[in-house]
Amino acid sequence: MQLQNLYTIHCRKSSQKYIYVVGTMSHKHLINISKSHPMYMEIVQSAKEAMAALQKRNPALQPMLAIIQIGLNITQICLAKECSEDEIVEELLKLNEDPRVHGVYLHLPPASLTSRVLNTLKPEKDVNGISDLNMGRLVRGDLSKGFVPPVASAVLDLLENHGKSVLLVGEDGPLGVALQCLIERSGMVALKSQWRSKSLQTQVMQADAVVLLGAGNMDVPPTWVRPGAAVIRCEPTLETGTVGCIVIVIINVVRSGRRWLQEQQYRPWQLRSLKLQPLTPVPSDIEISRAQTPKPVDQLAEEIGLLPEELEAYGRSKAKVRLSLLDRLHAQPDGKYVLVAGITPTPLGEGKSTVTIGLVQALSAHLKLNSFACLRQPSQGPTFGVKGGAAGGGYAQVIPMEEFNLHLTGDIHAITAANNLVAAAIDARMLHEATQSDKALFSRLVPSVNGVRRFSPIQISRLNRLGINKTDPASLTPEEISTFVRLDLDPSKITWQRVLDTNDRFLRKITVGQARFDIAVASEIMAILALADSLEDMKNRLARMVVGTSRSGEPVTAEDLGVSGALAVLMKDAIKPTLMQTLEGTPVFVHAGPFANIAHGNSSVLADKLALKLVGRDGFVVTEAGFGADIGMEKFFNIKCRASGLRPNVVVLVATVRALKMHGGGPNVSAGAPLPREYIDENLSLVAGGCHSNLRKQIQIAHLFGVPVVVALNVFRTDTQAEIDLVCQLAKECGASDAVPCHHWAQGGRGSLELAQAVNEAASRPSNFQFLYNKEMPIVEKIRTIAKKVYGADDIKLSPEAEAKIDYYSQQGYGSLPICMAKTHLSLSHMPDKKGAPTGFVLPIRDVRASIGAGFVYPLVGTMSTMPGLPTRPCFYDIDLDPVTEEITGLF
Amino acid sequence: MQLQNLYTIHCRKSSQKYIYVVGTMSHKHLINISKSHPMYMEIVQSAKEAMAALQKRNPALQPMLAIIQIGLNITQICLAKECSEDEIVEELLKLNEDPRVHGVYLHLPPASLTSRVLNTLKPEKDVNGISDLNMGRLVRGDLSKGFVPPVASAVLDLLENHGKSVLLVGEDGPLGVALQCLIERSGMVALKSQWRSKSLQTQVMQADAVVLLGAGNMDVPPTWVRPGAAVIRCEPTLETGTVGCIVIVIINVVRSGRRWLQEQQYRPWQLRSLKLQPLTPVPSDIEISRAQTPKPVDQLAEEIGLLPEELEAYGRSKAKVRLSLLDRLHAQPDGKYVLVAGITPTPLGEGKSTVTIGLVQALSAHLKLNSFACLRQPSQGPTFGVKGGAAGGGYAQVIPMEEFNLHLTGDIHAITAANNLVAAAIDARMLHEATQSDKALFSRLVPSVNGVRRFSPIQISRLNRLGINKTDPASLTPEEISTFVRLDLDPSKITWQRVLDTNDRFLRKITVGQARFDIAVASEIMAILALADSLEDMKNRLARMVVGTSRSGEPVTAEDLGVSGALAVLMKDAIKPTLMQTLEGTPVFVHAGPFANIAHGNSSVLADKLALKLVGRDGFVVTEAGFGADIGMEKFFNIKCRASGLRPNVVVLVATVRALKMHGGGPNVSAGAPLPREYIDENLSLVAGGCHSNLRKQIQIAHLFGVPVVVALNVFRTDTQAEIDLVCQLAKECGASDAVPCHHWAQGGRGSLELAQAVNEAASRPSNFQFLYNKEMPIVEKIRTIAKKVYGADDIKLSPEAEAKIDYYSQQGYGSLPICMAKTHLSLSHMPDKKGAPTGFVLPIRDVRASIGAGFVYPLVGTMSTMPGLPTRPCFYDIDLDPVTEEITGLF
Repeated sequence: MQLQNLYTIHCRKSSQKYIYVVGTMSHKHLINISKSHPMYMEIVQSAKEAMAALQKRNPALQPMLAIIQIGLNITQICLAKECSEDEIVEELLKLNEDPRVHGVYLHLPPASLTSRVLNTLKPEKDVNGISDLNMGRLVRGDLSKGFVPPVASAVLDLLENHGKSVLLVGEDGPLGVALQCLIERSGMVALKSQWRSKSLQTQVMQADAVVLLGAGNMDVPPTWVRPGAAVIRCEPTLETGTVGCIVIVIINVVRSGRRWLQEQQYRPWQLRSLKLQPLTPVPSDIEISRAQTPKPVDQLAEEIGLLPEELEAYGRSKAKVRLSLLDRLHAQPDGKYVLVAGITPTPLGEGKSTVTIGLVQALSAHLKLNSFACLRQPSQGPTFGVKGGAAGGGYAQVIPMEEFNLHLTGDIHAITAANNLVAAAIDARMLHEATQSDKALFSRLVPSVNGVRRFSPIQISRLNRLGINKTDPASLTPEEISTFVRLDLDPSKITWQRVLDTNDRFLRKITVGQARFDIAVASEIMAILALADSLEDMKNRLARMVVGTSRSGEPVTAEDLGVSGALAVLMKDAIKPTLMQTLEGTPVFVHAGPFANIAHGNSSVLADKLALKLVGRDGFVVTEAGFGADIGMEKFFNIKCRASGLRPNVVVLVATVRALKMHGGGPNVSAGAPLPREYIDENLSLVAGGCHSNLRKQIQIAHLFGVPVVVALNVFRTDTQAEIDLVCQLAKECGASDAVPCHHWAQGGRGSLELAQAVNEAASRPSNFQFLYNKEMPIVEKIRTIAKKVYGADDIKLSPEAEAKIDYYSQQGYGSLPICMAKTHLSLSHMPDKKGAPTGFVLPIRDVRASIGAGFVYPLVGTMSTMPGLPTRPCFYDIDLDPVTEEITGLF
Repeated sequence: MQLQNLYTIHCRKSSQKYIYVVGTMSHKHLINISKSHPMYMEIVQSAKEAMAALQKRNPALQPMLAIIQIGLNITQICLAKECSEDEIVEELLKLNEDPRVHGVYLHLPPASLTSRVLNTLKPEKDVNGISDLNMGRLVRGDLSKGFVPPVASAVLDLLENHGKSVLLVGEDGPLGVALQCLIERSGMVALKSQWRSKSLQTQVMQADAVVLLGAGNMDVPPTWVRPGAAVIRCEPTLETGTVGCIVIVIINVVRSGRRWLQEQQYRPWQLRSLKLQPLTPVPSDIEISRAQTPKPVDQLAEEIGLLPEELEAYGRSKAKVRLSLLDRLHAQPDGKYVLVAGITPTPLGEGKSTVTIGLVQALSAHLKLNSFACLRQPSQGPTFGVKGGAAGGGYAQVIPMEEFNLHLTGDIHAITAANNLVAAAIDARMLHEATQSDKALFSRLVPSVNGVRRFSPIQISRLNRLGINKTDPASLTPEEISTFVRLDLDPSKITWQRVLDTNDRFLRKITVGQARFDIAVASEIMAILALADSLEDMKNRLARMVVGTSRSGEPVTAEDLGVSGALAVLMKDAIKPTLMQTLEGTPVFVHAGPFANIAHGNSSVLADKLALKLVGRDGFVVTEAGFGADIGMEKFFNIKCRASGLRPNVVVLVATVRALKMHGGGPNVSAGAPLPREYIDENLSLVAGGCHSNLRKQIQIAHLFGVPVVVALNVFRTDTQAEIDLVCQLAKECGASDAVPCHHWAQGGRGSLELAQAVNEAASRPSNFQFLYNKEMPIVEKIRTIAKKVYGADDIKLSPEAEAKIDYYSQQGYGSLPICMAKTHLSLSHMPDKKGAPTGFVLPIRDVRASIGAGFVYPLVGTMSTMPGLPTRPCFYDIDLDPVTEEITGLF
């Protein structure tokens, strides 16, 4: 009976309303406190002492603060006595959002504990267990998620070892219900009586313990109570602020923190996969996409272990994921990293995206291995120009495919805006420098605001780079002013282009100032988005972008233009990857999408990093590289992996019978024209020729980097079994770890099961990843290494322009940047019509350029258009919108 | 005891799992069924009969379907016996989303009623009352929202009139808890015993009613039961499919439907307003914005009566609102419609946006009147060019202001993409027509797909317009083919421009084909977005857009280019207005933003319509018109109100002491230069001069349309009390209903209380709105009417070019379009330096153009740039992003 008193220490003199916020300072401070733990009594004791001390110093203070010393971080939010429900709700909403807070202890007068207040607090932080949801969980007996009201829990502790039969006397209410449920769940028997019941005395006499609910000044006569039986008085309010209850509140907080920690741990996802029922013949991509209802993106996010506060929904089916996830999961081991590359393709493409999506569908939905696909966002130019989406196809797609192929979450639009702001800034600056004196420029660039002139931080960065270590504008000498205000851009050496995300051939050749138009995805800002590994890194890269050269030969950067901060602001949302899902409900990140010819053509480092943490130790992240392996994979390894520090485990090399026949000597394949018969009828010798030339060479390229290769044969309807068997046999003879046919287009993940198993097997073997070249090698040597080892060239030949540029870049300190070759994807050589594995050629380097912000030097091998055109019948003719159902038709 | 049997009709032979979906077919079918209603027994009877009939025909079928005849629409979803939890969850998620479903009856075996299943279903559709949340509500006694389990409800009905004391015997569980709570809440006394309790017999003998829970084959001996007392046997599962329970399920569905209907009704919002604590001096706009935590947008949406399925969140603080809202609320009366216009401004602007926002803050947060602000989305060009956001300023702002001023939800980007797709389509078509024969063009435009040629629907529309009523491509004559394939655009008569959302002066003059660059907001597509009143209307307007003229003089439309469907697809999300909030947490729609010079410069018709329904009968929608009242207000009335059919109740005319002094003869005011002393020191005669000229004239213009005017004097720090008093006095003398000073910039809504009261007062008076001209008047007469009545001109003078264009448009059938004057906003006349109210001038019409899709003819009065430039020190110098906190600095 001694402990009983403990529960009746009430602190009712509060003149203010309090909300107590209880969270963990760091994971290390979480302590497992159980009732039998010696710390239990210690807490009570130290709480009592601290309470006394505190109250002595500050009598108005509530004693609950005394719990600080057990290692929990307690913040107290003190609201004014007359505060409104709105104000309480506002505080609670902030606490809900704060990931550092694991529990909120509401110490409010009963009148303030309205239904709205109780249910505004997130149930997972409701350590009082008073929200409707937690009460319902308790009644249904589901204690895995909710919290038990501390008073009920405390009473139950007291009842332990007091026998089986417990009589509850008095008014009902949430506390009574909670107690009753706990008693029965613990194997005791709960009986219920009322003060006025005629059988009260009999019942009391038969009970092993009696709990008096809301007794006020009522009591049961001591003579009624059986010897040894306990009588416990219990207040009807659930928020009683007794010291004993506070201990249980803390236990609840610790439990909440422990749950939170568990959520950070690796676990196989409880992924609700969406069922596929493939039809024959396979319907159009948009029909398949529309027939499937995607999971709400917040539900998908929960299934893969994202916290609600890490998600920014964009409509129902896509959401941006915050980078803070990387901090939260930094201790989590990465999953396996799989690259999907291809043999040299026909102009029709060989299906790398569908293989990527089919593979994750098989891994996640069928083998139940956590897995993520990381894809590039497509440009809208081709979407409305030549048929062919980037969301995969058939039964291996990202859905809703129209969202994927249209604006998505606006990243490309943000890049367009940022890119063109730089262009406008360049031309405006040149105009103003040409028409104003040094003094006029200075007084406009550093204007007097309320009588004070000040440099902006961006201007101070420029001054530092100029070696002018002054911060007071008045202290600059006329020479310094002139150096500061004049970028003196050489109009013939501006390298910055305007961009539009439209296939607009007329913009290829027009001259604006000295610049041209590119398609948006060719912007250096897109390459930066793909390679940045944090917001800060992106900001620094944006500032470093070189937009041209001054007349004295110095590089001029975006920071010199003063525009770097604005660029970071325009790109602040674009840096977060977009979460979507496959047709089978498995997660996909869509992010970035730089042109694979003049940029590195891979999706973003950040998406891969986030995905590797989310899948965890035994999971898989499957990402795709643009074009053939000689281009996309080489850049993935030498540029992207160098930037990210990530190491790939497996390369999946996509081949088709069609492309192999072409490399084996088959006739020309071109978009729009019907396929020659060789590609429709069985022809084993052409297939064998392709395997022994291009396929073998591409496998060897992957082996240069020390990564095992699984060949995925993307099966078409016209492929014969003999052709399929031959490819798989020869691929293994050429050094592939495994080679399997894939039927994802017609069957979804089930059709890629064999591939998934082969990848899982290959990923368990050691990978000895190494770069092809040391980045400190001279630029020319790096280019030569790629040309000889990867492309099979005898040597390279530099134009005088290329040589001059290489000298200039080396002299400016850009010599140690990696190389991003701009070469046709239709041949291993620079000659698009040389199929197979050409040899005996010298690779001509026409020119060399550099993307300093993105961080690579790009030699140009031949001509590449950076602004596609529209065909006579663009596919926009078929694209339409039903204004009633809002359904899109004709999008592939 | 007779009814008791009713509750024991169990149907346990189910060999399949069922989910019953119960919803209303239409509102009319909702019937108020209460237990005393004669229909109650009728339902039971008819259910029994129908059940018998159905079971005879199909023994496997569950009898619950028999409830169809009472007017509820019941859909049965039958899942396979071996269906997984995932499949049940998938069905439930679809039902959650379906607004036609008001209740879901889960008839599943206990093993399938997992915690996940129970809690996936939305609590507001859980007519079984078995979700944790509904159980918690019942325990806490909050029955206003949840549902009571039908079995418990049925038992309670039986207990009625059986006395006060009810004994519950048997195992506990959710049903027992629910019953106990209901019994105590109904004023009876609940006692609880167990089968093995020694006092069971005594307790039974004392009870007025005994409820046996999960009794199985146990029973109480009849001799124990007091004469007249009831004994009710009750199954422990909550999902017992008895006929009697089904009646209560239906009552629950009817209740759910009734709640749904109540939500459609007008009611004052329970808006949680955000407290403001204005500082002095007033901090920067972004500091004020950042200091306030916006409400989560889904919470704001709920407060103003939006359903979750009507919202598409874009991050945390902005969301698009679906147009289906207009259907749901179509019977709701509109609120009051208030236009904020201004006197002729100085080049610095006089604060219409801050007045708009201050006014809704005062109306909603202080007067507790439902009110909405409808604003235009700002162009990013000026955001990074010349200082001045469009989110308001000081303590009257839309927050988060950086979201408002940056990409928002991507509408302007969508317009840019759509606009430039048209431009690329024009130039591509011209190239292809110039280089291909009719036959080649036809075979490319109508290609053979798998051996079949077919016209796309867009091409059939073109054929119809050409008078060729054929659908088989093979049946066209060579002449028809030629007519069909050749748009034959006259290169000198292309009127379509490319756009970028950047202040880029270099794009003003470059020529691409024959077109130029405009800033994105000047696109006709933006004007269409603002004027469309449905998705279908937008699609039709996009198709009608004229992009140029053929060599034979026929207009060529976007539909002729085949691009209209793709445009609608690109714009499908942009058509939904974006919901944000003010600093005081009141709702704001941000939508559209056409240039006020060449377009009508008002925000969207759809945002206004949605807002007018949401505020309801006694609420207010405050929208803003660009530039001075002579331009923005005139276009609002004659173009926007004509398109929407909406009628304004009040005009708020914004004036400043500064602008009035300028009109009274004060010296020149220009951006960047310090203000002359006249504007800082008191000068009553200049103020009086401005009131008697420009202010009086602008009030008169509003009165031409029959709408009362409230003058809002936007008070600046330098204004003296005498100046303020003088303006208010003279404004009333000039015909204003009222004139009040506003202090929203420094004080927020509290500073606009007087204005809010004046507007509320004016809106209660009758308004006799009328258009200024009949749209069937000849174009010249419409222009003359505006020039004389609105601007005060003596007459107009047309250039020969203007005359020729007017003839051409009239002949093409565009003569009855309204007029959208393109005139300087700096004077009532066409001469920017003529302040006050100029008279004695003739308005020169240089040229006339037409936006056929948007639906207006626009005469050009003088020259207007449609592509702004950047100043020497654009404000991007100050804009920066902290990469750690992600906070933006320097954005105003």
